[in-house]
Amino acid sequence: MPRALLAEFVGTAMLLCAVIGSGIMAERLSAGNAGVALLANTLATVFALYVLIETLSPISGAHFNPMATVVLAWRGHMSAHDRWPLTALYILVQLTGALAGAMLANAMFDTSILQVSSKMRTGPGQWLAEAVAAAGLMFVILRSPTGRGSALVAAYIGAAYWFTASTSFANPAAVFGRIWSDSFAGIAPESALAFVLAQFAGGAVGAWLASVFEREAL
Amino acid sequence: MPRALLAEFVGTAMLLCAVIGSGIMAERLSAGNAGVALLANTLATVFALYVLIETLSPISGAHFNPMATVVLAWRGHMSAHDRWPLTALYILVQLTGALAGAMLANAMFDTSILQVSSKMRTGPGQWLAEAVAAAGLMFVILRSPTGRGSALVAAYIGAAYWFTASTSFANPAAVFGRIWSDSFAGIAPESALAFVLAQFAGGAVGAWLASVFEREAL
Amino acid sequence: MPRALLAEFVGTAMLLCAVIGSGIMAERLSAGNAGVALLANTLATVFALYVLIETLSPISGAHFNPMATVVLAWRGHMSAHDRWPLTALYILVQLTGALAGAMLANAMFDTSILQVSSKMRTGPGQWLAEAVAAAGLMFVILRSPTGRGSALVAAYIGAAYWFTASTSFANPAAVFGRIWSDSFAGIAPESALAFVLAQFAGGAVGAWLASVFEREAL
Amino acid sequence: MPRALLAEFVGTAMLLCAVIGSGIMAERLSAGNAGVALLANTLATVFALYVLIETLSPISGAHFNPMATVVLAWRGHMSAHDRWPLTALYILVQLTGALAGAMLANAMFDTSILQVSSKMRTGPGQWLAEAVAAAGLMFVILRSPTGRGSALVAAYIGAAYWFTASTSFANPAAVFGRIWSDSFAGIAPESALAFVLAQFAGGAVGAWLASVFEREAL
Repeated sequence: MPRALLAEFVGTAMLLCAVIGSGIMAERLSAGNAGVALLANTLATVFALYVLIETLSPISGAHFNPMATVVLAWRGHMSAHDRWPLTALYILVQLTGALAGAMLANAMFDTSILQVSSKMRTGPGQWLAEAVAAAGLMFVILRSPTGRGSALVAAYIGAAYWFTASTSFANPAAVFGRIWSDSFAGIAPESALAFVLAQFAGGAVGAWLASVFEREAL
Repeated sequence: MPRALLAEFVGTAMLLCAVIGSGIMAERLSAGNAGVALLANTLATVFALYVLIETLSPISGAHFNPMATVVLAWRGHMSAHDRWPLTALYILVQLTGALAGAMLANAMFDTSILQVSSKMRTGPGQWLAEAVAAAGLMFVILRSPTGRGSALVAAYIGAAYWFTASTSFANPAAVFGRIWSDSFAGIAPESALAFVLAQFAGGAVGAWLASVFEREAL
Repeated sequence: MPRALLAEFVGTAMLLCAVIGSGIMAERLSAGNAGVALLANTLATVFALYVLIETLSPISGAHFNPMATVVLAWRGHMSAHDRWPLTALYILVQLTGALAGAMLANAMFDTSILQVSSKMRTGPGQWLAEAVAAAGLMFVILRSPTGRGSALVAAYIGAAYWFTASTSFANPAAVFGRIWSDSFAGIAPESALAFVLAQFAGGAVGAWLASVFEREAL
Repeated sequence: MPRALLAEFVGTAMLLCAVIGSGIMAERLSAGNAGVALLANTLATVFALYVLIETLSPISGAHFNPMATVVLAWRGHMSAHDRWPLTALYILVQLTGALAGAMLANAMFDTSILQVSSKMRTGPGQWLAEAVAAAGLMFVILRSPTGRGSALVAAYIGAAYWFTASTSFANPAAVFGRIWSDSFAGIAPESALAFVLAQFAGGAVGAWLASVFEREAL
């Protein structure tokens, strides 16, 4: 179990480092063309997710996402006897990892290690987008054929960066980590709670939809 | 069977949501460079198709496309005793799903939920392009090695977005759904019928070509 | 055998249609940024190659390339009793297919169906680039693990579009087909012969290098 | 063993040729948008790495990287009786190959075959970035499931080009080769030593972290 917690810490840290670091790099290089910047941010995130899930899923399941951990615990995908304490520990290390990853990205790019985003992300369109993004993510996690989860989750997030209006955070740890980056990839603290609530609502819908397809007959 | 219909509804809705949503996002971010916008639209579509085919093909075959459904029914790839009623139901839920997906994208991006495209797409070059796009799509569907259909169909559409003059709709449900988006990705209603006819003509050619390669000797 | 010839015709035609069509589309959309245009051209070519090799290699080996056909015949990868007549027929249908593909792209994009490129591509750097591109291509073809040739050849060409100074034609049929396109992707007839000679020289070097690694000890 | 040394020479040469060649091409075509240039450079590097590892790893292990060779020798992944002499030979041919690859790229693009970069890359952010890049690379090499190393290493580098502030050299042979290119992809000689030291430090951390996950219990 300690190894699983270390894997969730390292994985969430490197995921946020990849998301934020590539966001900073993309913003600096793309000469004001936000389309070019989001293309680069997408590519880096897709590649990073694929690598992190492949290398760490045998250790911890490679959640890197408190919403996914809660839904998987609820659906019985974590060991039964201690699933709720384990869920709490997963969430704790995921959030700590997200902060560490943001700080690492900030340090590499010579900005203040601790900074707070001022980028407001709010409104019904954004919240609907987060619910859709999270529903799709849980659906993909629960419906992926064995051995293809890494490619499918990475590809899904790559699409959702573009087809959801919020660029698809879909992950409370990503929200928490991106608070600490005053960049293209950041989110202001006052926008965070609604994003997280929308993610849990969407995740529940996605898990329910996946379960519909599991049943023998409708 | 109800599960298959639900899968076709969900899959076609999410496909159109991905195509239109990423089209809107791409147009907004790419600072007038339509090449950057189409690159983003391509990436999102390829990733979405791959994920949707992988997760839903065990349930419904993952057509999401009335032209493909008709050709597959004609070629004997749907269960024989009820193939035409089933084909009609597939088409019905695909079109409903396409509309739902367009509305979802519109809602996420804070535009009118019901809107109509004014983007004319017409002329012999466009119609030839749709016939070529559909012929290639049916050829790829019918010739894909087992287990590689998801990657091959996604890759094919990614190429065809660029090498056909129409950006490769290749799908009557995509035509129908994109009518309801007054964006980069839309198509005006008066351009729709010719696109759909060209797609059926092309699909028949593609299926015929695939069948030529099936025979023992020419 | 007639099926193999049809496969080489169709495959080479669609390869050239993809290369030229995406070249025209990319040039039109990318607002003068040739980097964006070549990115799009690369993506379309990589996807098209992957799909064409996957769907047609069981029929004809999926050469689509007279240089590859000659080298494979020379190295004993074509049936022994009729390999030189078969090689001649392969080359004939590849060149015919390349022309057909160029004409199809021109027709879709509403330009003259028969046109001739005026784009000079000449000089020692370009010729060296074609030799390097062709050497790498033959090396990859001969060294690919079973079942991965489609992905490896497509990926190789995707890299070589950027790292060779000529954007890596690496294929006499591609040279021939692109003569008939007065676009971003074209090549003037007077530049063709030197490209083809460099490709055969490079292909021989690549095949020799691959053979060095086949031997038990150096 | 001579075949392994030849494979390391050819692989490192072609890797550097791909990195530098695509860097020159990208800089020339991207009309001053460095984001577009780095996207192209990333794509070419990812494709080249994937192809080189797939085709050469059965011969030499496909290191192409003195830091990786030293760490793998230290961790017991090279044959025991002669591992340190073999390591020295690997490093020698990797550095020679890197120089040859840079010269080949320079020749193709009609620039001086021998040139020296004037691009300073220095400061704590850059050094931290190289340590992070190298740690991640060694972690991925040591934790990749069998048969997926090529895709995972390529994807990792594709992400790290964007999320590290240094664009992730992560390889002393890449540092050495890029000294000989006065382009977008170059590095001034006076910046080289600190990069290499940071890479070895990072590589050791990555290997240690991978070993933590190997143990039965923490």
